[in-house]
Amino acid sequence: MAGGAHGPKHLRALTEIVLDALEDAVPARGGPLPAGGPEAVAVSTRALCSPVLPEEGVGPEVALADVVRAVAEGAADPADPACVAHLHCPPLAVAVAADLAGAALNPSMDSWDQAPAAGVIEELTTAALARLVHPAAPDPDALITSGGTESNLVALLLAREGASPGALRVVTGANAHHSVHRAAWMLGLPAPVVVACRDGRIDPAALDRALTALAGAPLLVVATAGTTDEGRIDPLPEIAGSAARHGARLHVDAAYGGPLLFSEHLAPRLAGLERADTVTFDLHKLGWQPVAAGVLAVADAATLAPLALRTDYLNADDDTEAGLPDLLGRSIRTTRRPDALKMAVTFRALGRRGLGALVEHCVRTAHGFGRAVDDHPALRRRPGDIGISTVLFRPAAADALPGEQGDAVVAAVRRTLLAEGRAVLGRAVADDGDGPARLWLKATLLHPNAATADLLPLLDLVTTAADRAARGISAAEGTGAPATERLSP
Amino acid sequence: MAGGAHGPKHLRALTEIVLDALEDAVPARGGPLPAGGPEAVAVSTRALCSPVLPEEGVGPEVALADVVRAVAEGAADPADPACVAHLHCPPLAVAVAADLAGAALNPSMDSWDQAPAAGVIEELTTAALARLVHPAAPDPDALITSGGTESNLVALLLAREGASPGALRVVTGANAHHSVHRAAWMLGLPAPVVVACRDGRIDPAALDRALTALAGAPLLVVATAGTTDEGRIDPLPEIAGSAARHGARLHVDAAYGGPLLFSEHLAPRLAGLERADTVTFDLHKLGWQPVAAGVLAVADAATLAPLALRTDYLNADDDTEAGLPDLLGRSIRTTRRPDALKMAVTFRALGRRGLGALVEHCVRTAHGFGRAVDDHPALRRRPGDIGISTVLFRPAAADALPGEQGDAVVAAVRRTLLAEGRAVLGRAVADDGDGPARLWLKATLLHPNAATADLLPLLDLVTTAADRAARGISAAEGTGAPATERLSP
Ligand SMILES: Cc1ncc(COP(=O)(O)O)c(C=O)c1O
Ligand SMILES: Cc1ncc(COP(=O)(O)O)c(C=O)c1O
Repeated sequence: MAGGAHGPKHLRALTEIVLDALEDAVPARGGPLPAGGPEAVAVSTRALCSPVLPEEGVGPEVALADVVRAVAEGAADPADPACVAHLHCPPLAVAVAADLAGAALNPSMDSWDQAPAAGVIEELTTAALARLVHPAAPDPDALITSGGTESNLVALLLAREGASPGALRVVTGANAHHSVHRAAWMLGLPAPVVVACRDGRIDPAALDRALTALAGAPLLVVATAGTTDEGRIDPLPEIAGSAARHGARLHVDAAYGGPLLFSEHLAPRLAGLERADTVTFDLHKLGWQPVAAGVLAVADAATLAPLALRTDYLNADDDTEAGLPDLLGRSIRTTRRPDALKMAVTFRALGRRGLGALVEHCVRTAHGFGRAVDDHPALRRRPGDIGISTVLFRPAAADALPGEQGDAVVAAVRRTLLAEGRAVLGRAVADDGDGPARLWLKATLLHPNAATADLLPLLDLVTTAADRAARGISAAEGTGAPATERLSP
Repeated sequence: MAGGAHGPKHLRALTEIVLDALEDAVPARGGPLPAGGPEAVAVSTRALCSPVLPEEGVGPEVALADVVRAVAEGAADPADPACVAHLHCPPLAVAVAADLAGAALNPSMDSWDQAPAAGVIEELTTAALARLVHPAAPDPDALITSGGTESNLVALLLAREGASPGALRVVTGANAHHSVHRAAWMLGLPAPVVVACRDGRIDPAALDRALTALAGAPLLVVATAGTTDEGRIDPLPEIAGSAARHGARLHVDAAYGGPLLFSEHLAPRLAGLERADTVTFDLHKLGWQPVAAGVLAVADAATLAPLALRTDYLNADDDTEAGLPDLLGRSIRTTRRPDALKMAVTFRALGRRGLGALVEHCVRTAHGFGRAVDDHPALRRRPGDIGISTVLFRPAAADALPGEQGDAVVAAVRRTLLAEGRAVLGRAVADDGDGPARLWLKATLLHPNAATADLLPLLDLVTTAADRAARGISAAEGTGAPATERLSP
């Protein structure tokens, strides 16, 4: 066991095995991800991990050494500067170490007698986050969630419960994360009304028209501060005004952008966020926490009332009256890992300024990377501003081909670099300035200390792969053979 | 950072600080939980952790040492044999160490390019679990969830989606976990129909009547294999038969009992489970994983179809066609921690037999503890069998008082032992044989190696506290003063 008097000793011996395996894996992998594509990774992983559930065990040391080796040699390591596909951050060592304490002690956040101190740490952490998001509200609050998806789900649930009588209508932008639509589906709400975007941001006039058309129904507007594809921040002041005029509740999905608030310099970009009733805020994106580290901030603690729940075994009335804190109404989950612990340690270790400096570093690196793309003769950056730390670009070789074939080159470049184990780039469909939607390569820069120079090798990797892909696609066009390469044999 | 070439070195230094703090905390705490009750814990935790978000950080070493000290000195440590309140297990060191690797590498389970090998490990793990639960099904499958609550939610969601046209009606026992009701509420379904229990188990005749009364509606029966309060297993063969006769889908919440399947000796108690369409199965209860470690097993992989989802950035059609595995449809979450990793390492380390032996140990210890209660002159065990590893009992001092006062003694005993930092006992309302419902003390024995002898001190702690509480309550009755003690000044 990890706990008790002898737990730390056992854990020390076993974490050594893990750390050794992690260390050995970096040279063995030889890049940001393993080469060979899905089939090769599956073969080597199975060799080390099968059968997963044997009749007789192989013992903790062997099992740890093998399976950790497999997962590490087969990882897409976000700490590698060439790993820039997603809002998938390299976690800080301090956060990972703190998380180890949570796992070892295993407090569960659903009752005081499973988490006496962890409950207090969560309370301090959520209070600080609540104050960060809603600095002027009289009674703000925040919940810890498993991520942006759960935060959006709970936001819609709270809006639904606050909206009786009549079915809540959700109005959101075409730029919203899919989890907003999924939440409406799960909650049995009508599909959200989608309003048009301009340059990846909600068009306030279109929003106003949509709200007018729905007059009479209880309404929830969902805006985004940091879109998944482009890092765009919706025009929050206009949206908040529009929502207020129509008596609509406002949720802002700031899963990506929320941590701009840590930086005095960048926080003004989120002006208007404080007018939202509920705010999704993730710390496993720009926040460098290992998953899970989600937050839902609410302007008014009373908004959380629908989550209240009594069960005799966890929060009986007489226990609560006798002074046992009631933790149950703070989540849609029951058993919960103490995710606030790693956040608290990180916050205290770095302070607001330290976190703000890391966010600023990512934004600055993205601009440096964007300039390098602009300066590269064989690449073209998507017209317009860089959103937070997301850069969209295309190889000129793709532009030289007709629409679908050009997009196929972009997709092939990404897959080739994945299969070769050289880079993890993302993809996004977005307008080409005033032109039609195209497929772009996406670099989401979340690395807290990679310099722009560390990212430059990506540019030549892309152009080289693009030239090959364009030749392949032109040749296939000639023969009628399928243009889609397979990632693995 | 925890990843990359230098990550393991940083992490090694910081995990040393964590392990030292965990080690020092055990004697400092001096028991299963800190003495002094909620106020005292709040004061000492705040002293070490406030402000959580300072302007300037204190550095990783100091932050880790302080906050981990706070959480460990203020923990209710499930590795202490006196910590038996909940389905809250002491995690195995091997599982905690494996989890560290997951946190350090931070794979996210929503796309292949964030989790190349972790995805394969999840696939192997869910395949093994699916086969364990549905050994004879042609195409079983399983999902990893954040716990029993999410598993139950997804089970109801899948049933709802499989049930059109017409609103699904859920029928469950009075013994069901609150998460079944909460799931129905979240999903916009009518409140579940509750059928009566006998001895804490669904009465099959009552179920049959309820299903008959609902004839015509799409139906989902939810049974429990291991109830929260009593560890009872519903009569699964009868329930499966009844569900089949009425054309109802069957979900079994085996969050607690599922791991009996690891033991050849105990698995027969779950006969009928294999007839369920969906099964909740937790490994952070009888499975010794740090939270989160939930599973939802399905008899037929096709059941999962409603979770399918396409998004260009995570699983574009052309990427899937080119051979990139699609992970997105395997959860209601998007970003997901690789919880299968710690399960896989534990499974391989212990094997099915090793896990089965630990489950058998818990069941055996519970029976030993039950006999000790039976033999104790000042304690009374709830009439009837012991459910899995849950023992309900009352001090004779509570029986000597009228109903409400007796229950107040039981509740006071629990709170006194919590406030004094001596034991973490649970509570449950349950019938007294043929008598009325009463409040009982609950011992849920999940400790994988504590012997019955290690648990015996609990008995005298309870009787001593009960005598004091009974005197206090009788005295308060005399004076008219409130009988409820406060847990802290
Ligand atoms: C804008 C936005 N909202 C919500 C989410 C979902 O967050 P999570 O993956 O943490 O559930 C994402 C994920 O990328 C996102 O980009
Ligand atoms: C029978 C049963 N089902 C479901 C749950 C919920 O599981 P979790 O707390 O992992 O969400 C519990 C929790 O104790 C339970 O006892």
